[in-house]
Amino acid sequence: MARDVTATLVSIGDELLIGQTVNTNASWMGAQLARVGIRTVRVVTVGDDATEIERALRESTTDVVLITGGLGPTKDDITKTVLCAHFGTHLVRHAGVEERIRAMFRTMGRAPLEANLTQADLPADCVVVPNTRGTASGMWFTRAGRHWISMPGVPHEMYTMMTDHVLPELVRLLGPPTIVHRTILTTGLGESQLAERISAWEDGLAADGISLAYLPHPGMVRLRLSTYGQDDPVAAQERVQRQVDALHALIPELIFGEGEDRLEAVVGRLLLERGHTLSLAESCTGGELSHRITSVPGCSAYYVGGVVSYANTVKMAELGIPEDMLALEGAVSRAVAERMALGVRAALGTTWSVATTGVAGPDGGTPEKPVGTVWIAVAGPDGVRAHKGHYAGTRDLVIERSAMAALDLLRRTLLGNEGNGPVPGDTV
Amino acid sequence: MARDVTATLVSIGDELLIGQTVNTNASWMGAQLARVGIRTVRVVTVGDDATEIERALRESTTDVVLITGGLGPTKDDITKTVLCAHFGTHLVRHAGVEERIRAMFRTMGRAPLEANLTQADLPADCVVVPNTRGTASGMWFTRAGRHWISMPGVPHEMYTMMTDHVLPELVRLLGPPTIVHRTILTTGLGESQLAERISAWEDGLAADGISLAYLPHPGMVRLRLSTYGQDDPVAAQERVQRQVDALHALIPELIFGEGEDRLEAVVGRLLLERGHTLSLAESCTGGELSHRITSVPGCSAYYVGGVVSYANTVKMAELGIPEDMLALEGAVSRAVAERMALGVRAALGTTWSVATTGVAGPDGGTPEKPVGTVWIAVAGPDGVRAHKGHYAGTRDLVIERSAMAALDLLRRTLLGNEGNGPVPGDTV
Repeated sequence: MARDVTATLVSIGDELLIGQTVNTNASWMGAQLARVGIRTVRVVTVGDDATEIERALRESTTDVVLITGGLGPTKDDITKTVLCAHFGTHLVRHAGVEERIRAMFRTMGRAPLEANLTQADLPADCVVVPNTRGTASGMWFTRAGRHWISMPGVPHEMYTMMTDHVLPELVRLLGPPTIVHRTILTTGLGESQLAERISAWEDGLAADGISLAYLPHPGMVRLRLSTYGQDDPVAAQERVQRQVDALHALIPELIFGEGEDRLEAVVGRLLLERGHTLSLAESCTGGELSHRITSVPGCSAYYVGGVVSYANTVKMAELGIPEDMLALEGAVSRAVAERMALGVRAALGTTWSVATTGVAGPDGGTPEKPVGTVWIAVAGPDGVRAHKGHYAGTRDLVIERSAMAALDLLRRTLLGNEGNGPVPGDTV
Repeated sequence: MARDVTATLVSIGDELLIGQTVNTNASWMGAQLARVGIRTVRVVTVGDDATEIERALRESTTDVVLITGGLGPTKDDITKTVLCAHFGTHLVRHAGVEERIRAMFRTMGRAPLEANLTQADLPADCVVVPNTRGTASGMWFTRAGRHWISMPGVPHEMYTMMTDHVLPELVRLLGPPTIVHRTILTTGLGESQLAERISAWEDGLAADGISLAYLPHPGMVRLRLSTYGQDDPVAAQERVQRQVDALHALIPELIFGEGEDRLEAVVGRLLLERGHTLSLAESCTGGELSHRITSVPGCSAYYVGGVVSYANTVKMAELGIPEDMLALEGAVSRAVAERMALGVRAALGTTWSVATTGVAGPDGGTPEKPVGTVWIAVAGPDGVRAHKGHYAGTRDLVIERSAMAALDLLRRTLLGNEGNGPVPGDTV
């Protein structure tokens, strides 16, 4: 029950090698296996090529080998033949499978082609895994306590086969050890600065048998804690929870969520809980901030709308920015960011507003205001605050990082206003 | 010059094995290599684990091995150490790289940490590949005519390194056979309908030694023509050009560009050429349309700004939609879409405007206006036109497809107004 159970994934298909299809099957399977405590140690992707498929099978040394793809009815699908050669068996017509294929076609009101019926030709020496969504059956080979399972590459057929049959059966047969993954989402510091800030905490993880990975993404760093324990699940969960608690105590203002949380959804929940509303005035983020807010289902409960004031004429006409302020301070300035936030909040009558103005690049930078200089302002019941940031990278990255920073300033302001501690990065 | 050049991709990172990150790097690299005639035969994904990384290096038998990931400044990044052991060399501090890292931090107004500077510690016996976008350098090892290139796993850093340095250098060193790829970008028809429309043309490609791939993406279908010839490059180019010309003659209104063109950039060029300006009024697209327009460098020459009128109050206050029109027709209607476009065009004083209003879901659908119902309007010098679409998929997909359709309606209107033929999909 407590040993380390390992898996190899073998993904078959020319389309995966030339970049026509992204290998989402492997990431889905890796996530599912991790959830039941089976550790994927390697993914091998090869084309519809007998030599390469055979080599991938031969080189796999793990307890479980999950194979996807190459089971279609066309000539380029050769996985079955390679499996027969590898396991020293041959194809036989499975009457039950043939009848199931005929029944599927009857339901669709069509007659099966001979190519469809050959999908009932399966290795003599394997357990057939039923496919409730298509005509290509799965094949399960067991040799010396190791397991090879071949499945179709069509995602929804494979998902169903894995969920309904393969995963429960693997758990029953191999009973993998306890495994715990937690992913803590942070924003506000880059990878290196964050690593320095939590270095002492990180050094203490090993004693608890926990490993840490930094997963940077524009505007955020995800911290993944993992433990593959020999102990019982509850004890492992508790070990990880203790370290997560310690991390929260160490960097409370940098953590905005966990797992699959998105910053825009976290902000949305905070607004919803308070019955507050939001409006936006975007210059350099050009609509990205609004797009993020509206990507959350149900956002109309708190999001009223916004203005993209790309040209100065719009800043003046729609947001009431005085012309002499633009001339004197420049569009990228604290004064203009604050007036944009106040202007849209007044015009749309919301509890909160956020404004951005900056130099997204690649052109438009000056020595005083280089590309990546962005002012962000948040206006609310207690007035307006602004923050100046410098964001690195291409135009797309400056926009993405600015949008993340703007959402985070709103998040911290919402929390800070309720006495949840100091708000760093307030002004520069 | 005409021999088969093969590649292995080695992707490193625990996050790839547990499904936290999809391996888009490998598909991007496979596509780029295919473009220059290098055939990827295998992708191996392993965790941040010295034994598995070493094994992947040892088992690779191809001319080229491209390695990504594990080059960050934190403790879980071990690729450099493994490469040193594999190639029998050791790390030395590269003064030039250190100075470049210090310069990057100076630009950002910060001091580098010691962890950042250790990224200048690189194998003594390799060619350093500069990283213009980050602090982790690439490393190029050559042994007995074979090439191993290690790059960071951060996509945009790797893309730049591949495009600017690795691909041209591989082509120079290994000179793959003649290869021609052309990718034609279409929008307005789904994959099956498009295939039916161009079926006769497609049947004629084989005689010219050209293969065709359909690459669907939300709101567009890319058509990739490929030929791997032993003939001279000019003749191969001409063969493909003839078929591209025939395709243009067949579906002129569906083709909006080629290669890496983006619809928003195509529309931007059309506006720029005419000296025209644009404003937007977005409801269901929620800022995505504006975000796309402003993702194009230099867009301030034609884009003035927009209004995200998520709540009906904003539609009334900012765009002058009469309250009784909203009550009578509903917010998702031809009348409201047209008034939104006219309203924002008048308010911001632009040549053109585009408006969207629809049901993005997952909630809010009705039997008459199910989720995915979207009205798009374009207003310009000759008045306003509107188009109703039904877009399938999740909320994100409805938003993405609506934004593509809105851009395309503007594109066709801009072209149609100059007599470039009929404008399909005009109204329903």
